[in-house]
Amino acid sequence: MRLVVIGGVAAGLSAASRARRLDSSADIVVLEKGFTISYSACGLPYFLSGEVKRQDQLMVHTPEYFQTERNIRVRIDAEVSAIEHGRREAVLASGERIKYDKLVIATGARPDLEKVQGTATAHVFALHTFEDAGRIAQFLADRKPKTAAVIGVGYIGLEAAEALRANGLRVRVIDANADVLGREDPALTKLVRQHLERFGVTVECGVRIGDVSSLNEEMVLVAVGLRPNVELAAAAGVRIGRTGAIEVNDRMETNLGSVYAAGDCAEAMHRVSGRPVYVPLGTTANKMGRVAGANAAGVRERFAGITGTSIVRVCGLGIGLTGFSVAQAKREGFDPVSAQIGSKDRAAYFDGRPTGVELVADRRTRRLLGGVITGEQGVAGRVNVVAAALAAAMTVDDFLDLDLAYAPPYAPVWDPLLVAGQQLIKLLN
Amino acid sequence: MRLVVIGGVAAGLSAASRARRLDSSADIVVLEKGFTISYSACGLPYFLSGEVKRQDQLMVHTPEYFQTERNIRVRIDAEVSAIEHGRREAVLASGERIKYDKLVIATGARPDLEKVQGTATAHVFALHTFEDAGRIAQFLADRKPKTAAVIGVGYIGLEAAEALRANGLRVRVIDANADVLGREDPALTKLVRQHLERFGVTVECGVRIGDVSSLNEEMVLVAVGLRPNVELAAAAGVRIGRTGAIEVNDRMETNLGSVYAAGDCAEAMHRVSGRPVYVPLGTTANKMGRVAGANAAGVRERFAGITGTSIVRVCGLGIGLTGFSVAQAKREGFDPVSAQIGSKDRAAYFDGRPTGVELVADRRTRRLLGGVITGEQGVAGRVNVVAAALAAAMTVDDFLDLDLAYAPPYAPVWDPLLVAGQQLIKLLN
Repeated sequence: MRLVVIGGVAAGLSAASRARRLDSSADIVVLEKGFTISYSACGLPYFLSGEVKRQDQLMVHTPEYFQTERNIRVRIDAEVSAIEHGRREAVLASGERIKYDKLVIATGARPDLEKVQGTATAHVFALHTFEDAGRIAQFLADRKPKTAAVIGVGYIGLEAAEALRANGLRVRVIDANADVLGREDPALTKLVRQHLERFGVTVECGVRIGDVSSLNEEMVLVAVGLRPNVELAAAAGVRIGRTGAIEVNDRMETNLGSVYAAGDCAEAMHRVSGRPVYVPLGTTANKMGRVAGANAAGVRERFAGITGTSIVRVCGLGIGLTGFSVAQAKREGFDPVSAQIGSKDRAAYFDGRPTGVELVADRRTRRLLGGVITGEQGVAGRVNVVAAALAAAMTVDDFLDLDLAYAPPYAPVWDPLLVAGQQLIKLLN
Repeated sequence: MRLVVIGGVAAGLSAASRARRLDSSADIVVLEKGFTISYSACGLPYFLSGEVKRQDQLMVHTPEYFQTERNIRVRIDAEVSAIEHGRREAVLASGERIKYDKLVIATGARPDLEKVQGTATAHVFALHTFEDAGRIAQFLADRKPKTAAVIGVGYIGLEAAEALRANGLRVRVIDANADVLGREDPALTKLVRQHLERFGVTVECGVRIGDVSSLNEEMVLVAVGLRPNVELAAAAGVRIGRTGAIEVNDRMETNLGSVYAAGDCAEAMHRVSGRPVYVPLGTTANKMGRVAGANAAGVRERFAGITGTSIVRVCGLGIGLTGFSVAQAKREGFDPVSAQIGSKDRAAYFDGRPTGVELVADRRTRRLLGGVITGEQGVAGRVNVVAAALAAAMTVDDFLDLDLAYAPPYAPVWDPLLVAGQQLIKLLN
């Protein structure tokens, strides 16, 4: 059995590795169009900020590692230009044809640069690939720019803004969307804007930039959100879902037999709405990759879907998100109500620092629909508790019954999550 | 309606406050035998360590506050010597009789000093009450002892050991039990012993001390675990459960009509086993108090029980526990299997620090039964995720489906919880 995987980053290499573990005799080939595989894309902003000293610290494994340790052949500079599924062949740009029995498409995504003009200018960058980060670092070192504009208030935009600020630049973040992080949550947007302004970063939401080369800043970083790389798959007859990403079932199967898709090119099922969404994130890519690899190796595994959990650090503020905001929940057909509270992340006498919790629930069923946590400490843990509650389809009542850990160095006696839950339940009764 | 509450710390004041919120006209009286009410008992070790500068920072509210802000009469120095339930009267030590319609017993617990001898010696202390902490601080300031023995490897013993070490004392912790924190988990005991020894604290488990006054150390702190204060209730005909604490149902009702019990004097239902346990903790006391107060005020509320979640910091190491260890689970009739992993609390290139996760599951049902998290950061959050999973009766498979937050400053791409879950599932398949 030959398994061919298109794409050599998170999902692709997870699929190949998982398949190898389950099938020691399969012939496994990974085709990567670039020159760098298996790196932490999520770590790139921290290389720019200087918190990660050397870019090669972000490399996880080399092609040699996969060959010798996992018996997986990884070919770099191997761009696939077509999938001829009738013949079960991937066609490289060089013309070479590679036969497959099973195919995993993990072609990832790219910054959606069609939304902006003027990107083909020397001082305009994306922060998407390993090479992008190297180019930006070089530019910062060579030109020592004093000002930067970041286009996009998603994760990458905000992380990049923090990194550029850490390099001493004055930074302005601009987005055509009204709200940060794609959350449609005005309160969160206000909080993030105020926090960033204290650190000398200006945030302008609802501002569309036609041509980024016209901006006055000495450098421009375009982080306008991702667009799934589906063209190759679509041309081969793979069905594209309503989100614009590749449609898959819970085994990561596409509509074509023996063809799987995983990672930033594919949709995932949202466990709160039960509907497919496009939320490209590193953890999800790894998990989908594993499931695709298992099924390609003939072992039935399923991907349960996502609750849309994520966390980002912006100038010291942690922001954790899961599930839906009120606006998003309404669009999904729920009747949402939300409560927001401000509390301390641990006992007040133990230097407790401000933390905010917003919980969203459905009025009819009392089911929790989403949450936002902000603060310096404990944000990841608290948003993960909400994520677990969403996965278990807990009502607010169930949530209030949780037995959460308490000790003064870690939490106040009433955890902020429970304080928010108590506030929310008042609105439901 | 007159509500009398016996006990003016966590459970008692939660009950009184909740009853007031639900019944603005009730006559509410809290009887506290000591002179200090509404303080954070859990904060006392941090006053001794110096992390909390002044002891009065641990005071939450005064009797005056309750009177003026909540219309609750709090009487200090008001020890109840008998409950005459036939006459619906609480009898004070002074002979005064106080009528009640509803009664909440929140008499708390005391260090189980019957287990040790020689405690009536000037250099032997408990660390249970506000006054205890003041006496210890005074002794440390006046005598400047160089050595201390701590009897007990529960939360208070370990926190006290850390606090005394922070004062420069050489500390030895001794317990007749084989394992720390009442967990019956030899691996955890070994980890804690090794960690404390690096900080100059010796741990001797399985060593019974007959008479503590014979120890060579210049001071002795006895923290041998708590014994519920049930004598008053038992004498009035309140039923005591198999754990030795007051038996209550999920509305905090005792066997006597209109008499409720809450906090460290009462049992709680363990949600994993479905059986009553005695786990006296501050959060539980507050929650039970709220439920007792609501029901006493005529509003049906229920307490879902506990999963035994707790966290303690010992010389910088966070230890989070929830559910059962293998030994405990066996005794509860499960067929437990456990997996332990060592991982990093965030991305390795982001200065990830060691963290350990142990998960316990039932072989037959695949249901999660418990977890232990150790590490410097993220311990509270991770143990709370396991606690949520226990509350939802998740299987290991459900647990692996959780969508947990990832960003390099907060977690590795595969959260240690999921790495442990993957390890555990291999043992189940």
